[in-house]
Amino acid sequence: MKVITLITDFTDLDGYAGIIKGVILGIDSTIRIVDISHSIPAQDVSQAAWMLGRSAPYFPPGTVHVSVVDPGVGTSRRGIIAQLGGQVFVGPDNGLLTVLYQRAVAQGKAPRIFELQNNRYKLPSPSFSFHGRDVFAPAAAHFLAGVPMEEFGKVVSDPVLLHLPKPLRTENSLQGEVIHVDAFGNLAANIYAHDLESSANARIIIKNMEIIGIKNTFGDSLQGELLAIIDSFGHLSICVTNGSAAEKLGAGVGEAVRVTFLPV
Amino acid sequence: MKVITLITDFTDLDGYAGIIKGVILGIDSTIRIVDISHSIPAQDVSQAAWMLGRSAPYFPPGTVHVSVVDPGVGTSRRGIIAQLGGQVFVGPDNGLLTVLYQRAVAQGKAPRIFELQNNRYKLPSPSFSFHGRDVFAPAAAHFLAGVPMEEFGKVVSDPVLLHLPKPLRTENSLQGEVIHVDAFGNLAANIYAHDLESSANARIIIKNMEIIGIKNTFGDSLQGELLAIIDSFGHLSICVTNGSAAEKLGAGVGEAVRVTFLPV
Amino acid sequence: MKVITLITDFTDLDGYAGIIKGVILGIDSTIRIVDISHSIPAQDVSQAAWMLGRSAPYFPPGTVHVSVVDPGVGTSRRGIIAQLGGQVFVGPDNGLLTVLYQRAVAQGKAPRIFELQNNRYKLPSPSFSFHGRDVFAPAAAHFLAGVPMEEFGKVVSDPVLLHLPKPLRTENSLQGEVIHVDAFGNLAANIYAHDLESSANARIIIKNMEIIGIKNTFGDSLQGELLAIIDSFGHLSICVTNGSAAEKLGAGVGEAVRVTFLPV
Repeated sequence: MKVITLITDFTDLDGYAGIIKGVILGIDSTIRIVDISHSIPAQDVSQAAWMLGRSAPYFPPGTVHVSVVDPGVGTSRRGIIAQLGGQVFVGPDNGLLTVLYQRAVAQGKAPRIFELQNNRYKLPSPSFSFHGRDVFAPAAAHFLAGVPMEEFGKVVSDPVLLHLPKPLRTENSLQGEVIHVDAFGNLAANIYAHDLESSANARIIIKNMEIIGIKNTFGDSLQGELLAIIDSFGHLSICVTNGSAAEKLGAGVGEAVRVTFLPV
Repeated sequence: MKVITLITDFTDLDGYAGIIKGVILGIDSTIRIVDISHSIPAQDVSQAAWMLGRSAPYFPPGTVHVSVVDPGVGTSRRGIIAQLGGQVFVGPDNGLLTVLYQRAVAQGKAPRIFELQNNRYKLPSPSFSFHGRDVFAPAAAHFLAGVPMEEFGKVVSDPVLLHLPKPLRTENSLQGEVIHVDAFGNLAANIYAHDLESSANARIIIKNMEIIGIKNTFGDSLQGELLAIIDSFGHLSICVTNGSAAEKLGAGVGEAVRVTFLPV
Repeated sequence: MKVITLITDFTDLDGYAGIIKGVILGIDSTIRIVDISHSIPAQDVSQAAWMLGRSAPYFPPGTVHVSVVDPGVGTSRRGIIAQLGGQVFVGPDNGLLTVLYQRAVAQGKAPRIFELQNNRYKLPSPSFSFHGRDVFAPAAAHFLAGVPMEEFGKVVSDPVLLHLPKPLRTENSLQGEVIHVDAFGNLAANIYAHDLESSANARIIIKNMEIIGIKNTFGDSLQGELLAIIDSFGHLSICVTNGSAAEKLGAGVGEAVRVTFLPV
C-alpha cells in the first residue's frame, strides 16, 4: 500500500494542494493521497509539527507525510526526506519533523535523513517559490515508486529541530502551556497523561480559574461546565461540555497551564 | 467496490478527518473514502441527518456512511451500525440516521441495526472523546473488509430517532419551515414537490413576502428576483437569482414557510 | 489511469461536491477524483477559468477537469465536453474553458468540443439546478469509462470564450492588472515572464508604490518588504516576504499593474 498525507498552510482557496496531487498521480497513479489539513495558520511551523505528531501514528507503516509550511522557500534551506521509525517525512528542513524525530529517537529507532538534491526526482526547472509541487511531491511519489532514500542526496546529520516547549516540573506541580486549540475550543496542553500522578488529586489552574480533578470524559458533565480531561491524544485538555473553553477563558496557544498535586 | 463517506463537524482545522482516513486505510487499503462535509455546525445532529438523507441516494449500493456529530461522546450513548435499505450507516445512536431510517421503512425495507460492542473491531484502548477514530472508522472498515454486521454486537430495536419537523396541512395550505440554507443562500423547506398540488396556483409566504407560483428553475429569472422553485433534491426552495435569499430575507433554518393554494 | 478533477463554487458546507463523487464512483469505481478547489467566489467564472489554466498542466494527460461555476444553470446555455490539447474539460459552456482553449490553439492543437445532449449519459430526470450532479459528473465518468466524445452530442464550433484581460504594451511599458490573489496575499498579474525584457531594469508600479527590479524569490528579502517576483506559474507577482501584499496595498483582483523599462 502506498499512502501520502498532506499538511500545508495552503487553504482550499487557490488549488495548490490539488496541483500537488496531480503531480503525485502523474508519477505513480496507485498512490492514495490523504489530506490531513490545509488550514495550518500561515507559516506556523510549530502547529504543523504538532499536528504531524498527533496524526502520523494512525497511518499505516511506510506512509509518507508531505508537510509544506515553508516560510524559507527560495532561501538556502534544505529539502529533506527522513525515515523516522515506521513513518516517512518529506518537506523543508525547518523543524516540521521535530515531534516525529524525537519520538523515533525515544523509541530507539535511529532517524535516517537525506537531502533532496537529485534533480532527477524534481520537476524540470523547479520554481523558487512552490517546492511543494516541484520538489516535495515528486520526491514522495518517486520514493513510493521504489527509489531508495539514499538516491535523493547526501546524508543529513543535523536536521533543524524546533525547541518545542516542555513542562517545568517542581515537587508538587507542573507548569506547561496550551499547544493546540481545536475547532471545538478545547485547549490541549503539553502535559501528558504519564506526566500526571493520580489525577484525582490534581488541581489545574488556567487564567485564574481552578479545576479540581481530571475526568475521563466530558460527556457526563453539565452543559457549559469547565473541566479537565485527558484527551484522545493523551494530552491534558481544558474543555467545556458542548461549548468552547477557548472562548470561555479567552485563552489560546501559549496560555500557561499549571497543575498542582494536593497532598492525599 | 468499497466506499466510505464522512460527514462530521470536525472542520479542516485539526486533522481529525485525516486521522480517520489513516485508520480506515490501515484496516483495508482498497476502500475509497469520500468527504461529504466536515462543516456541519458543531453538535448539530439535525443538519447532519438531513445532509445524510440528501446525499446517500447518490452513492453506490453498499456504501458505508460514517457520520460523526457526537455531543454525547463518552456518555452511555450507543454506537451503531445499520443496514437501511441499500445504504449502511455507522455512527453514534443519537438520531443521525433518522432520514435514512424513515426512508427505508417507507420503502418497506426493514432496518437492521446492531450495537458496536465487539472490542475486536475497535482500536485498542478506545478513548472517551474520539469515537470517530477509535470505534466508528474501524467498524466501517472491518464491515467492508467482510465482517458480518451481527458480529459487532447485539441487535438494536429502538434506535434514537429525531423528531424532524413535518409540514402541517390544512385544506388550502401547508405550513412548513426552512430546514437547510446552502452556501448560495437558497432556503430549502421541509415541503416536497409531491406535497404540492398544481404549483401554478401556489402562493408562498415567508417573512411577510409573498411569491406567486413555483418555477422550474431560477436561470430564467431576473437578477436579484425572489422566487420559489423545486430544488434538485425535490424540496420547495426560496431563492434569489444569482443572489442570496437568506441574506435578502434575513431568514435561516427554522423560518416559517407557508404555501396556500389559490382557487383555480 | 482515470482522473477527474473538480473546481466549483460549492464550498464544503452542503455536501454537493461529495454527492458528485458518489455519482462518479457509481458509474466507474476505478476513477481517482481530485479536488482542486470548491472555494471559487460564487458565480465567478473568470477566477475558475484562470485556476483551471494554472492547474491542468500538472495533471496526467487525459485527465478530465469537471468545472462547475454555473450562474446560467437552468437556462438554455449548453453543457459541453472538450478535448483541449492533452486535457479534457467538462462543464457549462460559459467560458470556463477559455484559458485551456487558448493554450491548445496556441500550441497548434485543434480543440474538439461536443454538446452534452445524449440523455443516456445523464442521470434520469436531470434537475434544472444541479447539472454538476446530473449532467457533468455522469458525462465525465462515462467518457473515462470508454464512451467516445462524439457520442455525447453534436459538434460545438462556437464555444463561449471570456474576454480575459491582456496587458497593453507600449514601447517602454506594459499595463496589466491583478488576476489572482492567493491565500498568502500574493498578487499575480496577467503579465508573464516572457512578456518582460531584462527584469533587472524593470520598474513595477502598483497603487502608487514603485518596486525596482524583479527578484527570483522572496526568500532572501527582508520580512515585510514589498517585492516583485516571477511566481511559480510564470506570472509577475507582487509579494511581501512572510506577509500579505494584498493587505499591505489594499489591492485585489483588477488592480492596475504597470511595468516600465528603464533605459539600460
